[in-house]
Amino acid sequence: MTSPNIVWHHATVNRERREKLNGHKSVVLWFTGLSGAGKSTLAHAVEEELHQRNCRTFVLDGDNVRHGLSSNLGFGETDRRENIRRVGEAAKLMMEAGVIVLTAFISPYRADREAVRNLLPHGDFLEIWCRASLEVCEARDVKGLYKRARAGEIKNYTGINSPYEAPEKPELVVDTGELSLEDSVASVLRLLKERGIVAAPGNL
Amino acid sequence: MTSPNIVWHHATVNRERREKLNGHKSVVLWFTGLSGAGKSTLAHAVEEELHQRNCRTFVLDGDNVRHGLSSNLGFGETDRRENIRRVGEAAKLMMEAGVIVLTAFISPYRADREAVRNLLPHGDFLEIWCRASLEVCEARDVKGLYKRARAGEIKNYTGINSPYEAPEKPELVVDTGELSLEDSVASVLRLLKERGIVAAPGNL
Repeated sequence: MTSPNIVWHHATVNRERREKLNGHKSVVLWFTGLSGAGKSTLAHAVEEELHQRNCRTFVLDGDNVRHGLSSNLGFGETDRRENIRRVGEAAKLMMEAGVIVLTAFISPYRADREAVRNLLPHGDFLEIWCRASLEVCEARDVKGLYKRARAGEIKNYTGINSPYEAPEKPELVVDTGELSLEDSVASVLRLLKERGIVAAPGNL
Repeated sequence: MTSPNIVWHHATVNRERREKLNGHKSVVLWFTGLSGAGKSTLAHAVEEELHQRNCRTFVLDGDNVRHGLSSNLGFGETDRRENIRRVGEAAKLMMEAGVIVLTAFISPYRADREAVRNLLPHGDFLEIWCRASLEVCEARDVKGLYKRARAGEIKNYTGINSPYEAPEKPELVVDTGELSLEDSVASVLRLLKERGIVAAPGNL
């Protein structure tokens, strides 16, 4: 039943074979930006488009990480850095598994994002800066957290009482404060096509 | 370009859609047993078989977790438990991503394995006990670690100076000390067929 020529003691299924099976490459799309800039919305919209093209995808964000893998971490600087480290390691494993991984975390510190980049093979970390002004993000204030941060009820709130270190050489900048969601999605898909991650039929 | 009826603010791609795309269900196969019982060998052999059936698979083991996600953990009881917790959370995420996840860790404590079981939806955690006697495992001593543990050079070595709590109600027991690898793989595949995880054509 089993193939006689398999070396059983080692892993025989690798990323390359999984990518071949999937019909697309795997990669980590690292969305970064202020709270309210639209990282999670954009990541999920890109995921929907990719899924419709039969791609294997997964979005890592606060919803599924903070209650799970990082449930024993707080929101001080040290714990936020460890959170990003764990997200990076989880993303690496999923990428190895053949998945296009989309992460949506503020990830405000340049050094932390670079550490994740260095964790991955060259070219497998695509940093996507969701660029929207603090004014725009604060005006949206979807969860009412900017208001509470301004009132001093939340410490370490990025943009208010904690810094956001903008990417210096991101693979893509998406002006989420100005572009429509549709155009934002299209720009990410163009990047994936240019990088050879997915074949993009039609007018992409 | 994008579908107009998508609710962008939430995740639209879920486990069910991924499973449909993949043509099989996702699950966590939790291999547990003494060092040298053959957990990793069996997990990789099962993975090879599943990959040849076009299944999406991934093996989490010490090789890819201890140098990554758990690189800041040691081997004392507290850290070993946190290691298993992180593996469980990572496995949960990958299962959500549509992957058949195979984990190969000694995971000696019953409470830790039950904690992972309780993390997952009912029926998605399949505990597979790789049962081999300490005598057999110690005689194999692939990495020479039993010898070092007997000499007192390694603390907390399961089976020597740290307990292994055998599963009480595992979904499957594989007598890896007696069965051939081929028969061991077949028994795991039978379980997957019985549980409706994969369609098993032919003589499985």
